[in-house]
Amino acid sequence: MFNKLRLLTPGPTPLPEEVRLALARDMIHHRKPAFKKILASCQKGLQTLFGTKEPVLLLTATGTGAMDAAVTNCFAPGEKVLVVEAGKFGERWREIATAHGLLSVSIPVEWGRAVTKDEVAAAAAAHPDATGLLVQASETATGALHPIEELGPLCRERKLLLVVDGISAVGISPCPMDDWSIDCLLTGSQKGLMLPPGLAFMSLSPRAWAKVEAVKPKNFYFNLLAERAKVAGGQTLFTSAVNLVLGLEACLQRFDAIGLENVYRKQWALTMCARAGVKAMGLEPLVAQRFTWGLTSVKLPEGIDGQKLLAIAADSYGVVFAGGQDRFKGRIVRIGHMGHVDWADLAAGLHALARSYQRCGGYVGGRDYLEKGLAAYEEALEGGKCGAIIDVSSFPA
Amino acid sequence: MFNKLRLLTPGPTPLPEEVRLALARDMIHHRKPAFKKILASCQKGLQTLFGTKEPVLLLTATGTGAMDAAVTNCFAPGEKVLVVEAGKFGERWREIATAHGLLSVSIPVEWGRAVTKDEVAAAAAAHPDATGLLVQASETATGALHPIEELGPLCRERKLLLVVDGISAVGISPCPMDDWSIDCLLTGSQKGLMLPPGLAFMSLSPRAWAKVEAVKPKNFYFNLLAERAKVAGGQTLFTSAVNLVLGLEACLQRFDAIGLENVYRKQWALTMCARAGVKAMGLEPLVAQRFTWGLTSVKLPEGIDGQKLLAIAADSYGVVFAGGQDRFKGRIVRIGHMGHVDWADLAAGLHALARSYQRCGGYVGGRDYLEKGLAAYEEALEGGKCGAIIDVSSFPA
Repeated sequence: MFNKLRLLTPGPTPLPEEVRLALARDMIHHRKPAFKKILASCQKGLQTLFGTKEPVLLLTATGTGAMDAAVTNCFAPGEKVLVVEAGKFGERWREIATAHGLLSVSIPVEWGRAVTKDEVAAAAAAHPDATGLLVQASETATGALHPIEELGPLCRERKLLLVVDGISAVGISPCPMDDWSIDCLLTGSQKGLMLPPGLAFMSLSPRAWAKVEAVKPKNFYFNLLAERAKVAGGQTLFTSAVNLVLGLEACLQRFDAIGLENVYRKQWALTMCARAGVKAMGLEPLVAQRFTWGLTSVKLPEGIDGQKLLAIAADSYGVVFAGGQDRFKGRIVRIGHMGHVDWADLAAGLHALARSYQRCGGYVGGRDYLEKGLAAYEEALEGGKCGAIIDVSSFPA
Repeated sequence: MFNKLRLLTPGPTPLPEEVRLALARDMIHHRKPAFKKILASCQKGLQTLFGTKEPVLLLTATGTGAMDAAVTNCFAPGEKVLVVEAGKFGERWREIATAHGLLSVSIPVEWGRAVTKDEVAAAAAAHPDATGLLVQASETATGALHPIEELGPLCRERKLLLVVDGISAVGISPCPMDDWSIDCLLTGSQKGLMLPPGLAFMSLSPRAWAKVEAVKPKNFYFNLLAERAKVAGGQTLFTSAVNLVLGLEACLQRFDAIGLENVYRKQWALTMCARAGVKAMGLEPLVAQRFTWGLTSVKLPEGIDGQKLLAIAADSYGVVFAGGQDRFKGRIVRIGHMGHVDWADLAAGLHALARSYQRCGGYVGGRDYLEKGLAAYEEALEGGKCGAIIDVSSFPA
């Protein structure tokens, strides 16, 4: 009864106050000059966020809508695509491709691991007729971070269109579209962007646009060519989700004030905090290497009821985690620490996890999980480099 | 500099305070019990609003997304559909049907007039192989109200699936789906429902569901069968647009407190106000009969620059109207009076229209437009019946 609600799920994330106040503004018209100015200002911020010179399209849809749009606009039925399946969202790529009549070749990856460049290269060599690679930057179901920075050159060489679901990556860890030779990058509003669900963003490389022009997609609502034609005039093809765009403006202003490098640095430090804290409890993060920067999945030992643990954390400590999906249902806890989450929220999460785990019959190995977690956070934040996996200082601002 | 902004466009409409406060609430998780309860309560309110026993689906999309979903789920490529084209949104039905490989037979109607039952019957007789009729309840481009209540029985007889875009009708004038034998009714959030744009709602009759099951649509994001399977559990297929749903809950509570009949009565009275006021100025409403209850289009005499008139109304009086689209660009003013608009807002609109018209060189015939408009409003409101065209008292609550 004394607990505040703390949302530590991998999306949606808590909302900053300035976003909530923007959402509460009274309506303005989506075809009038005041709104066009806002859209134009958002366009600049989105291009910086995506690391691209190309326009970033706004779709009124969830991230899955943008995935659907990417598949139907970039590929014609009958084309063959490679799909990295390392979790539920990799599977979603395959389901979308199949629904639209594409031939999809799965690159199966054990849930909890990132794909390797060699695995993709082998699939590309075995299927020289494939025209695209569908992959997540971060697999939200597990927290594995795929090596997009290595896949760009490979895809160029193999003439594969590189289509990246950046839903739990954009605004969380670097994903510079142009530098990494990504052909289509998309994300949703409710993860790194700290907005409610309901908007999706996507951008295409010149190579991808040429493909879309050749494919001549039949899509009406998700018509990317028609959408692109509207961007220059500060409009969207259909009615804009006005209030979400007002929230977006507030979010992008926050990114601009903080600096994207610092946003990534905070995300990296939170990840270090979560991993150090969890390990100090005697628990094991699911992803050993190449872990994402916005969530940390934790394996539960045999005999621990994950559903019960989640219920205790929510009911007794006010902390809402996400559980595992499908084969991981009840077997892992996913601690979200993306978007508007800070060190103290995450410390509360670690404590709620330890206590809930204990109350489910688990043995917490060390009592200093908070101290170790917070020390790891501070060290990572002050160290200035975001660890060995990806060195943020090497990316353009 | 002293003016408040008054949005009198046919969507988006101003937002009630309780909706704005709901939008500003902090995030809750879309797969957790608290949100499922809210979705379940919204479901009841939406069924009342739609006048149906069938589930009402929530899509994260604009109304056009729901139109696209209706076409792709209810019809297979190659099927023939009749399309009532009485304005830009009728044309949109045709464009969507064509984009998805349907054969569309246009029923052309002069912009500003409603289709007649005889026109539809003639087209149905000429095309006995047609399987559907696509029509607006209210054509937002002109403000004509099509006779849906007469088209239901005709479509049953002719074995046509009756698909109705209710975007500027639902929550504005009666459109009881089950009583009128509508097979698919859809709407968007930003018109009668007084919400920001970004959500769409649709419901299908048992006959339409049987058709969808037979068509086996390839759609992934707009997969209505999969969406329907989620309704019973208080979920949507993909991530719900959480804050818009919180706003929806507030809107439906308002409808419940006021009573739908009273909402319609207010809309009818505002329509009487707009028409009486405009006529008192010496101007002519575009639609002579079967006009919609949420907007009033006004013809501008030759030589009056409609774009300039709109700019004056906005800049000098704070009143934002919509102009005409396509062939009506600059030739009509569309006064929106749907959603969260009351008599005083509309009176301000009438005055702004008169003054702006004058400043564009127009001659305002009578000075008593406000008195006449408000008298018509009061008379309609107190009369208790919504005019001769549709008698709201004959519909079930």
